[in-house]
Amino acid sequence: MLPKVSIVMGSVSDLKIMEGAALFLDEMEVCFEINALSAHRTPKQAMEYANSLENRGVKVVIAGAGGAAHLPGIIAAMTPLPVIGVPVKSSNSIDGWDSILSILQMPAGIPVATVALDGARNAGILAVQILALSDGALMEKLKTFKANLSKKVIDANEELKNVKYKMKIN
Amino acid sequence: MLPKVSIVMGSVSDLKIMEGAALFLDEMEVCFEINALSAHRTPKQAMEYANSLENRGVKVVIAGAGGAAHLPGIIAAMTPLPVIGVPVKSSNSIDGWDSILSILQMPAGIPVATVALDGARNAGILAVQILALSDGALMEKLKTFKANLSKKVIDANEELKNVKYKMKIN
Amino acid sequence: MLPKVSIVMGSVSDLKIMEGAALFLDEMEVCFEINALSAHRTPKQAMEYANSLENRGVKVVIAGAGGAAHLPGIIAAMTPLPVIGVPVKSSNSIDGWDSILSILQMPAGIPVATVALDGARNAGILAVQILALSDGALMEKLKTFKANLSKKVIDANEELKNVKYKMKIN
Amino acid sequence: MLPKVSIVMGSVSDLKIMEGAALFLDEMEVCFEINALSAHRTPKQAMEYANSLENRGVKVVIAGAGGAAHLPGIIAAMTPLPVIGVPVKSSNSIDGWDSILSILQMPAGIPVATVALDGARNAGILAVQILALSDGALMEKLKTFKANLSKKVIDANEELKNVKYKMKIN
Amino acid sequence: MLPKVSIVMGSVSDLKIMEGAALFLDEMEVCFEINALSAHRTPKQAMEYANSLENRGVKVVIAGAGGAAHLPGIIAAMTPLPVIGVPVKSSNSIDGWDSILSILQMPAGIPVATVALDGARNAGILAVQILALSDGALMEKLKTFKANLSKKVIDANEELKNVKYKMKIN
Amino acid sequence: MLPKVSIVMGSVSDLKIMEGAALFLDEMEVCFEINALSAHRTPKQAMEYANSLENRGVKVVIAGAGGAAHLPGIIAAMTPLPVIGVPVKSSNSIDGWDSILSILQMPAGIPVATVALDGARNAGILAVQILALSDGALMEKLKTFKANLSKKVIDANEELKNVKYKMKIN
Amino acid sequence: MLPKVSIVMGSVSDLKIMEGAALFLDEMEVCFEINALSAHRTPKQAMEYANSLENRGVKVVIAGAGGAAHLPGIIAAMTPLPVIGVPVKSSNSIDGWDSILSILQMPAGIPVATVALDGARNAGILAVQILALSDGALMEKLKTFKANLSKKVIDANEELKNVKYKMKIN
Amino acid sequence: MLPKVSIVMGSVSDLKIMEGAALFLDEMEVCFEINALSAHRTPKQAMEYANSLENRGVKVVIAGAGGAAHLPGIIAAMTPLPVIGVPVKSSNSIDGWDSILSILQMPAGIPVATVALDGARNAGILAVQILALSDGALMEKLKTFKANLSKKVIDANEELKNVKYKMKIN
Repeated sequence: MLPKVSIVMGSVSDLKIMEGAALFLDEMEVCFEINALSAHRTPKQAMEYANSLENRGVKVVIAGAGGAAHLPGIIAAMTPLPVIGVPVKSSNSIDGWDSILSILQMPAGIPVATVALDGARNAGILAVQILALSDGALMEKLKTFKANLSKKVIDANEELKNVKYKMKIN
Repeated sequence: MLPKVSIVMGSVSDLKIMEGAALFLDEMEVCFEINALSAHRTPKQAMEYANSLENRGVKVVIAGAGGAAHLPGIIAAMTPLPVIGVPVKSSNSIDGWDSILSILQMPAGIPVATVALDGARNAGILAVQILALSDGALMEKLKTFKANLSKKVIDANEELKNVKYKMKIN
Repeated sequence: MLPKVSIVMGSVSDLKIMEGAALFLDEMEVCFEINALSAHRTPKQAMEYANSLENRGVKVVIAGAGGAAHLPGIIAAMTPLPVIGVPVKSSNSIDGWDSILSILQMPAGIPVATVALDGARNAGILAVQILALSDGALMEKLKTFKANLSKKVIDANEELKNVKYKMKIN
Repeated sequence: MLPKVSIVMGSVSDLKIMEGAALFLDEMEVCFEINALSAHRTPKQAMEYANSLENRGVKVVIAGAGGAAHLPGIIAAMTPLPVIGVPVKSSNSIDGWDSILSILQMPAGIPVATVALDGARNAGILAVQILALSDGALMEKLKTFKANLSKKVIDANEELKNVKYKMKIN
Repeated sequence: MLPKVSIVMGSVSDLKIMEGAALFLDEMEVCFEINALSAHRTPKQAMEYANSLENRGVKVVIAGAGGAAHLPGIIAAMTPLPVIGVPVKSSNSIDGWDSILSILQMPAGIPVATVALDGARNAGILAVQILALSDGALMEKLKTFKANLSKKVIDANEELKNVKYKMKIN
Repeated sequence: MLPKVSIVMGSVSDLKIMEGAALFLDEMEVCFEINALSAHRTPKQAMEYANSLENRGVKVVIAGAGGAAHLPGIIAAMTPLPVIGVPVKSSNSIDGWDSILSILQMPAGIPVATVALDGARNAGILAVQILALSDGALMEKLKTFKANLSKKVIDANEELKNVKYKMKIN
Repeated sequence: MLPKVSIVMGSVSDLKIMEGAALFLDEMEVCFEINALSAHRTPKQAMEYANSLENRGVKVVIAGAGGAAHLPGIIAAMTPLPVIGVPVKSSNSIDGWDSILSILQMPAGIPVATVALDGARNAGILAVQILALSDGALMEKLKTFKANLSKKVIDANEELKNVKYKMKIN
Repeated sequence: MLPKVSIVMGSVSDLKIMEGAALFLDEMEVCFEINALSAHRTPKQAMEYANSLENRGVKVVIAGAGGAAHLPGIIAAMTPLPVIGVPVKSSNSIDGWDSILSILQMPAGIPVATVALDGARNAGILAVQILALSDGALMEKLKTFKANLSKKVIDANEELKNVKYKMKIN
């Protein structure tokens, strides 16, 4: 089977954040691949990887990086596929501001779909939202997931009724 | 014909920024609709709008807002479709930081695909990248667009040869 | 008895911050309710909650959230009651800046009365200040509370006299 | 007649921003007073003013200031009435950040209900929301105002239908 | 003996930072007093304190506070004496930015001599520099202190020669 | 006559801001000198200048600079006199943040008394506050100045009574 | 003749800033070339350009870009030559913060020598400082340039003596 | 043997960061020296050090400092050699912003080649890149280093294939 989503990160050390995307794709049963390639340390490999994506049947890229995070933008420059960028608050980042701005502020012509700092799970969800546009069964799974999100909040709210304060009356 | 993309903004005054998306969709010949609805002033209408999107055949939403920009997130909460968020540096914004953070930093479960500040054109391109995944003709148009982007830069670089400095030799 | 104040938060995990408001209402003997509802995960429930507030006799809402904190604004959009917003420095927040700006920078027409980052106790005090405008007994309790605040600082200052430095003479 | 709302600002030069509150109170037919008093240049007058508020029948204070904006906090320290703070982006402000943080980040015990940068109109609305809790006629005016807010957005959205793009179909 | 310097802080909890000033005054044998008074919780006491300073023979004030740090500015408003402000990165501060801006950005007419975040020791040094202008013996102590500062760096640099790296040759 | 205050700036282009200090010293009739010396372009001259200050009878230095503003700190390193730093929002500054942080955040041992961004007038006032500690006549002038500050605000407040709004009643 | 320095920028529109480097190289009579190539719009051309630099005899690269400024980092990834980065405050930049952080915060292994925002002239000076290490004649020109820098400041300071204030005495 | 690179830092406590540069020079077998000198506590020694650099055969300076980090700029002011600045996130720094801006934002005429926050290793690499321009053997070592950087990423990517997720297929 071919991967529909390709997860790529600037360093293997980003995996602890980026696996949020992998775990969601597992939940939704969407095939994916994972690579760690650096725009700066392995520019040629990153280029070749980006060039190969469309032909290998990949539909959506999820790219995460920290600091001066150029990987998502460089991949977006090389492929017509949608690229979702995950700013990673790695140890070489200034509270995440450098990662966010390096990924978000792409020039006209080459967008990167940026999600929240360390928001790899949301990147996985966004990838599934995109794939579900042409896959009705996946759309149903996605809707069930969203309904469950709601249900968890509602259940937690029910349990909150058990928390007692003197003047609390619900 | 049905709109494939729905552009929505928090205020009609955002149109001068948001029409960047409309103009790109015009270039790519993708049908779209435009609405101005406020998450705060017309919450019910915004909800109804969000609820109607999927049934009306819309595939991708482009939502722009300034200041405490809640519109993209509220729509993303109500629809399984991918929502692209455009932070707008409107007059009620602190240099755009409020718009960016209000759109980008969505909680786990409800992503918004955020583009650069005032990056409506890139939102349009991202929408087309998503639609092109299941529309080969659109993918070809998109590749032609990207090739033209390159060509413009290369042509401009050629013209740069005519700029003269005493010690310049290319 | 009916709740005069409704405390609501975006996630049960915010309770450790938000109970600062509950504890102050306990001190002042003001009835309240607590709910955890998400503007993004349970938008319909949040709307219904907001719509029901006035009819259920609630006078003031205290709404706390972190990250792209839309809950206070969305509730303010749906009710004519004053809404006090508490920016929460949750784990999905960039040092609190996203929470602050998402709550503070509301557009013209829909104010949220924002207090300091993690300032739930102050939200409770502000709610009591509002209720006390038409409740003389509560106003007296509030004045006693403020007098005690003063007294604690003055007492602490007295004790500071016991801290010794070589050249200190008070 | 007595003023229900007292508007105060750190400098007469803030009036061009602060009159947003006055104009809304005019719309809602709520009596108010306006003063310009500086926490730093006229500390005694500011104190006397703050001390006199409750006895003069004032219910809500709207205090605006720029730069190291201490006026709202100092007044909140001296009165049990709710104080709404308006950060003003005056000429002596660093893009408004100093005004916002000086007003918002009040210590536990002394809240200031902060609104958006230059958000004087929203301060006026918040004051009316507070007063309307014990004034049914004012609550009706407020609801009409909110309904009109909605209507303006809906009407503007209707007019947006007249804006033409090649591929736009609503 | 009368205190020449008055150290004041917004909360007794600031003493762990503010004692940096006390310890330097001890080193220089300059008499001082310490008080904890809040601009917000004890505004009257803070005013009376500020009013009494000149008559009690105090020459320089060192005022520290965190968050929306109004104490230094309020004291500067009430006394013609120079006031040195110490922004404190207390638990209710946003990384110190609120404390810095609330103290630094005073309006024209009422300066506060601001030192670095948590820079209480430097506040003590600055106070001594001011007092030394009319006290020759103190000026000599200050010069000895500055010479010792130099000597410590030079001595440390000598010891650095003992740190070995393969290619290091000094 | 000897200058009591020495005003120095990193570039002659800072004079339009820095003359705020000169004009206040004129008002208070305090002798001063002005120099433009760069810590980076004329480091030796800046050092010699700093070394000469005390012997030439100068009591207080006012040093202003923009961008990576090293001049105030370098002078403070070379003289035991109090140095007042004025962050200048010059054309080579990032909204003033670089100037502020370069001047404010001095290491332990070498304080610079920092005033607000572009706050040269306040630097002049602070210098006079310091000189007035040992000059009773100057202290009287300073008190008159502060009283006039108050009076101007009070007079402006009186004139504000002439501003009319429909519901305004003071 | 071969270019010793290669100036490259992300867009021809950056030339108005980047020509600061060109003009300094003209002053120092150092041969250079100028190109406008985009890391995102012409990634292949940027790579080929970077790969060709060393063989064509270039010694130092000056690379400027705005927004998510990836060009300097991508070139640094492809060449062993020193790369000087110039953050450009272009129209698609958030006050320059994005450009600065995208260029400065490079990961370990791939440095970019970053200069001030819009600091193209300083990039030219730094390039000459590097070339002068093995070119004695160029080192002499550089020293003359630095001496002239000093002289201009000293001359301007002399002229400052003609500026008159009432109490000014130098 | 003479040092080719001189490492200098504002305080011995910066050594734990700055030794990143030393260790890289060890790897590349480039002779260096290390000093700890303060621009503020030992200004004369810092000046003498800067003045001696060129005559002692040093080619490149690596200067690190935290807070109001003036050392790199002051050295750059005194020597025609290229100075690489390392912003250090020391305990007296506001998240590193002060160090970055104090080093990066140098005025026209006096560049400092700034690297990432705590980026001492990159400073070492940049120094070697500069020295390698006139040292072919060093250039070869540098290329081997860069090739090894690539290899490590590629090897790590191979190992990533062993990480298993349910739907992962590479």
